[in-house]
Amino acid sequence: MTNAISIFDTTLRDGTQGEGISLSAEDKIKIALKLDALGVHYIEGGNPGSNGKDIEFFQRAKSLGLSAKLTAFGSTRRKNSLAEQDSSLVRIIESGVPAATLVGKSWDFHVHTALQTTLEENLAMIYDSIAFLKRSGLEAMFDAEHFFDGFKNNPEYALSVLKNAHNAGADWLVLCDTNGGTLPGEIHDIVTRVRQEINAPIGIHTHNDCELAVANTLAAVQAGARQVQGTINGYGERCGNANLCSIIPTLQLKMNYNCVTDQQLQSLTGTARYVSEIANVNMPVGQPYVGNAAFAHKGGIHVSAIMKDSKTYEHISPELVGNKQRILVSELAGQSNIVSKAFELGLDVNANTDKTKDIMNHIKELEHQGYQFEGADASLELLLREAYGESTELFKVESFKMLVDKTNGHMVSEAIVKISVDGQMVYTAAEGNGPVNALDNALRKALVQFYPEIENIHLSDYKVRVIDEKDATAAKVRVLVESSDFDNTWSTVGVSSNVIEASWEALVDSIRYALLGMSKVEPANSESKERLGLVNH
Amino acid sequence: MTNAISIFDTTLRDGTQGEGISLSAEDKIKIALKLDALGVHYIEGGNPGSNGKDIEFFQRAKSLGLSAKLTAFGSTRRKNSLAEQDSSLVRIIESGVPAATLVGKSWDFHVHTALQTTLEENLAMIYDSIAFLKRSGLEAMFDAEHFFDGFKNNPEYALSVLKNAHNAGADWLVLCDTNGGTLPGEIHDIVTRVRQEINAPIGIHTHNDCELAVANTLAAVQAGARQVQGTINGYGERCGNANLCSIIPTLQLKMNYNCVTDQQLQSLTGTARYVSEIANVNMPVGQPYVGNAAFAHKGGIHVSAIMKDSKTYEHISPELVGNKQRILVSELAGQSNIVSKAFELGLDVNANTDKTKDIMNHIKELEHQGYQFEGADASLELLLREAYGESTELFKVESFKMLVDKTNGHMVSEAIVKISVDGQMVYTAAEGNGPVNALDNALRKALVQFYPEIENIHLSDYKVRVIDEKDATAAKVRVLVESSDFDNTWSTVGVSSNVIEASWEALVDSIRYALLGMSKVEPANSESKERLGLVNH
Repeated sequence: MTNAISIFDTTLRDGTQGEGISLSAEDKIKIALKLDALGVHYIEGGNPGSNGKDIEFFQRAKSLGLSAKLTAFGSTRRKNSLAEQDSSLVRIIESGVPAATLVGKSWDFHVHTALQTTLEENLAMIYDSIAFLKRSGLEAMFDAEHFFDGFKNNPEYALSVLKNAHNAGADWLVLCDTNGGTLPGEIHDIVTRVRQEINAPIGIHTHNDCELAVANTLAAVQAGARQVQGTINGYGERCGNANLCSIIPTLQLKMNYNCVTDQQLQSLTGTARYVSEIANVNMPVGQPYVGNAAFAHKGGIHVSAIMKDSKTYEHISPELVGNKQRILVSELAGQSNIVSKAFELGLDVNANTDKTKDIMNHIKELEHQGYQFEGADASLELLLREAYGESTELFKVESFKMLVDKTNGHMVSEAIVKISVDGQMVYTAAEGNGPVNALDNALRKALVQFYPEIENIHLSDYKVRVIDEKDATAAKVRVLVESSDFDNTWSTVGVSSNVIEASWEALVDSIRYALLGMSKVEPANSESKERLGLVNH
Repeated sequence: MTNAISIFDTTLRDGTQGEGISLSAEDKIKIALKLDALGVHYIEGGNPGSNGKDIEFFQRAKSLGLSAKLTAFGSTRRKNSLAEQDSSLVRIIESGVPAATLVGKSWDFHVHTALQTTLEENLAMIYDSIAFLKRSGLEAMFDAEHFFDGFKNNPEYALSVLKNAHNAGADWLVLCDTNGGTLPGEIHDIVTRVRQEINAPIGIHTHNDCELAVANTLAAVQAGARQVQGTINGYGERCGNANLCSIIPTLQLKMNYNCVTDQQLQSLTGTARYVSEIANVNMPVGQPYVGNAAFAHKGGIHVSAIMKDSKTYEHISPELVGNKQRILVSELAGQSNIVSKAFELGLDVNANTDKTKDIMNHIKELEHQGYQFEGADASLELLLREAYGESTELFKVESFKMLVDKTNGHMVSEAIVKISVDGQMVYTAAEGNGPVNALDNALRKALVQFYPEIENIHLSDYKVRVIDEKDATAAKVRVLVESSDFDNTWSTVGVSSNVIEASWEALVDSIRYALLGMSKVEPANSESKERLGLVNH
């Protein structure tokens, strides 16, 4: 049978069931365009029967000229009623989509408990609804809800539901592990059984409640399923849906199935990061294939082996999915991490092996003090460039003061900074809604006359970590600051027993780095651009 | 064969290879106590040959009286040298652990490329090192690095490596999918092959680069592996290690294997969240089994079905793993445990159902603002007691000022506080090595004349977390403070866009709580003590 797998993306529908995920019609348009560029075959846009936002999306999406098929989602008709008069079915047809997915019950327990009707009426609801879509000229997918739980509980009925949808003209029978509790072996056996009983195109729709959604999807494909339903980054209700960002590359690179073109596959990382930006959900740093750490190496032994042959600790070449290798510098690392980082920066390491050793020791000493450079590439780069004799000082901090005052419930935070640029002294002050914000405002205010471009820089992330808790309030804190301009993102670090001083250190590094224009050559750029969705694929 | 699975936790070793994860010896002690309470059988504490922090951990861990076996990690001896003279092997033995894990090469490509020695010398390195551990009286686990890649490339050599370690006396042969690129079917076939060739206890160690680490571990167990290596929350290099928080409940609840007791399984969610707090890594909201959204229901149809029977959309009962159901669209969520908390405190809830509803809404509003009471029992208790009409105000804060000044590299932090006790005003100031320390010192100084017992209280933990990173320096921060006296520990929380104000709020709550003598009766103490590792198991 064919090796072509039909990719059905439901990020815009099932994905929005995830906690904290809410997409406007405009967001959905942006994501649909990305999904189309990635090469998915179906884009499920929403449920026109449930809300006006989705109706608006389908209206606007018509003019996008997508190669992917837009599909609408709905339920089978209400019990004891006519499909032709079911408002949600009618809205699906009115939305003008070429294809639709209808969800129906295949677990007898659900028919009794949730639907509270007879097994026969449930069959009729499914038949009538699918037949109505087909009469209306749509491609029809039938989502057999809870199919695997249903099959385990009452195989005859679960199969009769599928046969019924098939007889009504369903183009795809999609088997759903709605509660995400089924194991890969069960999925494989049950899909195999279904294919023996029914000769129809089979799809698979899994959830991640046992952290097995990807494995369950692959097991179904191996048993003959040819449509895969999932979401970008695995967004979805509870623990999420099957993650297409892991399924697509595994099917294509490791199992010889065809999902998208090799070129489209290279846009996977960009797509994943773009969608996470639009959905405003932080991506787990270690997300398989597309995460920022998916090909990041920290252990010293690993790094020295990677230098010899990246195959030693990488299961695929990161470029195949548009990701890239990163070498993290950390206490666990041998010298090789630093050397390769210096190479990245074009610094002449070999000519300076003694100096490299000194730098290595200096960095180890800093890490011992609590610095952590794996999350602060920009600070590390400043450090290395200075060590190799490049001057990176653009302004000198003479002093700063920070005052927080709360009287009668009224909070004030103000910062006073004194800096000099080429011997010219600037003394200024600013307020903020917190001490760090006040310091940031004062520093910018002092520098903007010399470096107007500072207006384009903003802090995009701020993290504080108490390093050594043995001494509670006297403990050291590490501050990580991430800054962005239009094209780039970079991170710096500060450490002190004083959270204000640590924040100040990271702020100053961040702005020095930006003003030195290093961000323009920083290797992470292209990736950051993708993250911010500033490059077109 | 037996259904008992030996759980080998490597959160403290392989877990710290994860990007952004760095644990102090103190952190490791706290986590080890939690892991022991969860009932894991092996706790891999670190690599005494690689850094002093791990040596300190093993020193201190001896006195913890753990039921789990502490294990140290290291590599086989260097090429062309003697095991007895290998400093890293010697340090393992010096660390005094009862068991150790040695990693060795089983992929011929790695022997040539990374190790750059002969296949014979690699076999000798493994044999000598394992034999040395056994002569020294240790239980020895052999981690066959890249075993599956090695087997696919050269099965004879990969098997000879295992046989060699077995002959040297290895107690467990642990098959590692080091690069995380192997698929479940391959894992199952290769483990089956190994068991046909070698009669020895087999372990499995997988990585998540294809989002298949859990499935691969389960496949190995089904093929006969009886030791599972993984980490809490799946922390680890690149995409992480196999996630024990998903593997343990699936093996135990769905596959009839025995890992821990049912009671220990109920501590799984608490353990996962505690470790994420210590590691200061946000847990994905939808993490299977233990995530805050793992049993959260959003869809209207789902919710109405859940109300009829939770089995309709839950694959297990959340209580089995210590998690709970949440209904995102209703106000019901969390109510039960607030009510039971009020009961604990002897507050008359039933007589005040309206008041209870008001409190519930107030707490919901606070949580919406970023407060989190799971980690701040003392703040919750103060809140409830006040709501039920108990007076908890012992002193009134009129105002505070905080000044940080850095001039000529000299840092000064001073705090000025104005409080009143029974109408008597105290106005005083103090210095500190940081702003929070200065505030803490000033507050104690002002109160000690009224409450001499304050001398016995000290801050034992201080955590800062940025809640909402969208707005960088203007983002809100949550401060968690843990305080202790001679026999109790309690936690308080403060939230503000101003880190100083948030810290002040938590400090004041903490001292109010202590002075009210609540710490002597607060039910959560024993639990808190456990959390801080102040009680012996």
